[in-house]
Amino acid sequence: MRLLLLAHGKFTGMGGKTARGVYFYSPHEVVGILDRSLAGHYADEFFPGRRHVPIYSRIEDFGDDFDALVIGVAPIGGKLPDAWRSEIRYALERGKTVISGLHDFLSEDIEFSRIAERTHARIWDVRKPPENLRVADGSARNANTVLVAGTDCSVGKMITAVELTMEARQRGINAGFVATGQTGIMVGADAGYVIDRIPGDFMAGAVEELVLEVSKTKEIIFVEGQSALTHPAYSGVTLAILHGSYAKRIVISHDPKRREHHHYPGFGIPPLERQMEMYETLASSVSGGKVVGIAIDGEHMSDGEYTRYVEKIEDEFSLPAVDVLREGPGRLLDAII
Amino acid sequence: MRLLLLAHGKFTGMGGKTARGVYFYSPHEVVGILDRSLAGHYADEFFPGRRHVPIYSRIEDFGDDFDALVIGVAPIGGKLPDAWRSEIRYALERGKTVISGLHDFLSEDIEFSRIAERTHARIWDVRKPPENLRVADGSARNANTVLVAGTDCSVGKMITAVELTMEARQRGINAGFVATGQTGIMVGADAGYVIDRIPGDFMAGAVEELVLEVSKTKEIIFVEGQSALTHPAYSGVTLAILHGSYAKRIVISHDPKRREHHHYPGFGIPPLERQMEMYETLASSVSGGKVVGIAIDGEHMSDGEYTRYVEKIEDEFSLPAVDVLREGPGRLLDAII
Repeated sequence: MRLLLLAHGKFTGMGGKTARGVYFYSPHEVVGILDRSLAGHYADEFFPGRRHVPIYSRIEDFGDDFDALVIGVAPIGGKLPDAWRSEIRYALERGKTVISGLHDFLSEDIEFSRIAERTHARIWDVRKPPENLRVADGSARNANTVLVAGTDCSVGKMITAVELTMEARQRGINAGFVATGQTGIMVGADAGYVIDRIPGDFMAGAVEELVLEVSKTKEIIFVEGQSALTHPAYSGVTLAILHGSYAKRIVISHDPKRREHHHYPGFGIPPLERQMEMYETLASSVSGGKVVGIAIDGEHMSDGEYTRYVEKIEDEFSLPAVDVLREGPGRLLDAII
Repeated sequence: MRLLLLAHGKFTGMGGKTARGVYFYSPHEVVGILDRSLAGHYADEFFPGRRHVPIYSRIEDFGDDFDALVIGVAPIGGKLPDAWRSEIRYALERGKTVISGLHDFLSEDIEFSRIAERTHARIWDVRKPPENLRVADGSARNANTVLVAGTDCSVGKMITAVELTMEARQRGINAGFVATGQTGIMVGADAGYVIDRIPGDFMAGAVEELVLEVSKTKEIIFVEGQSALTHPAYSGVTLAILHGSYAKRIVISHDPKRREHHHYPGFGIPPLERQMEMYETLASSVSGGKVVGIAIDGEHMSDGEYTRYVEKIEDEFSLPAVDVLREGPGRLLDAII
């Protein structure tokens, strides 16, 4: 499948997490990126060493040589801009698949669903919750799971989980990846639901179901966590995933430079040590999971800062601390297997 | 409004929580109870001192002298038994309101909705989530809220919150009650949603919205909590309510005889002290809430056991410990106001 990524205005910025995740990790070919603000450039100018993909201003400039259009960013204010609508129409009219992680389902848009029906195009709304929801019942409690949790949103949980899974596979380990968010699902998780879209009572049960399914064929499962236990808006999702995954081992993703929860000024992020205690305390009665490593989001650190920080916290906690994008996931995986 | 409660087989048992809650606390008149297993008795034979209400086998035995039929128990296996369907039909055919807390919405049942349309009967599906969901944004963080949390499901959180609200009002305090479950909503909360039915991302925001609304007219708000932070299936709902309520003060409901989570054998309930620590630790970065009292579910304790237990834990924690059904909520409220 040849993917075209819609990422207008955000491919390299904070809101471009999904587009970049697909660009970095999709097992499919990425043939083009739509971002008006970067048109004419190539993606690897911004992410050296990654795929060499041209960036276009409009879908018409790219043409028809793709199989699926991926909506890789969310529109500001939530409403689809007209320019995007016409690009989605362009894809559907040509029978192409449209993959969307938006809160509003494209398949429930009357115009889009009519076109798709006529052209047999497929609309995949990744956030759509599964039909058969159930509450957790403990049936996955013996699964061999590693949860990649974190101290805030956007600190690299999905990236760390994917990197650990790929590294494990390269070492010949039969590893699985369970996604709990849209990007993880889009980059080819073994199974996944967007857990934050599932009603509260069924969140842990949905994670348990994913873990059960993947554990049929995999010997170790990396589960993507969401948000943080201290996040004022999303902490419920975080805890449901901790409990529903029955994680025996926990990796904590952390951005040392972040003092407050992203978008939530005044809501501080407690020190890493406290967060590690919280995860272990809350895991204790359900899975007994322990923190086995720290995944650092070192994007905003110089090399010197990073090295000093790693030394300091490895010494403090006697656990490996690794930015998987900076030095690869090897040392972190060593602590897990 | 004159209420008729459907509670077949469970009015006095574990599954009758909603029916009993409405019987105990509804501001409306309860004119009859449907429970085949107890027909011919009066409700206050089982709950001395409470309302004197006759129990019937079938709705036809009761007749038409009511305004609303309340579905006060959930059917085993989730599917509506035929006998209940015919009783719901009976009510709707006569233009009566039907109030339901079932997971499956009666208003989406084709047969029921057609009858209701014809007779102008109202179907109120209490679990139905609100239309306009939003994420929490911190806007209720200065509200004066007391969360009645707990160490498991069914340990008296709703009862304690209602009793505290009523007692506060009797003392001339302008107190509000925010419900987070079906029974609380049915007994006349100032505002409420069934939070466990709301998608994960929006749970805390929904609680925040309720708190904001009620704080416009009330000086102190008692918020009903759900489940427990250590519950394997529902902990996400618990934490979303803790954070979304911005509770400054927390009351912990606890059944000292319970060792494992109800329906979850093998999932132990950590000691009360640990649970209190967990609530305070998780509240610390969002509301800074502190535990101010313990609400004991002493249903399965003798008077002697109860007295000794209260002495022991009041001494241990220097906090009031009160079974509000046994001795009234006065001492507990003293610790809050």
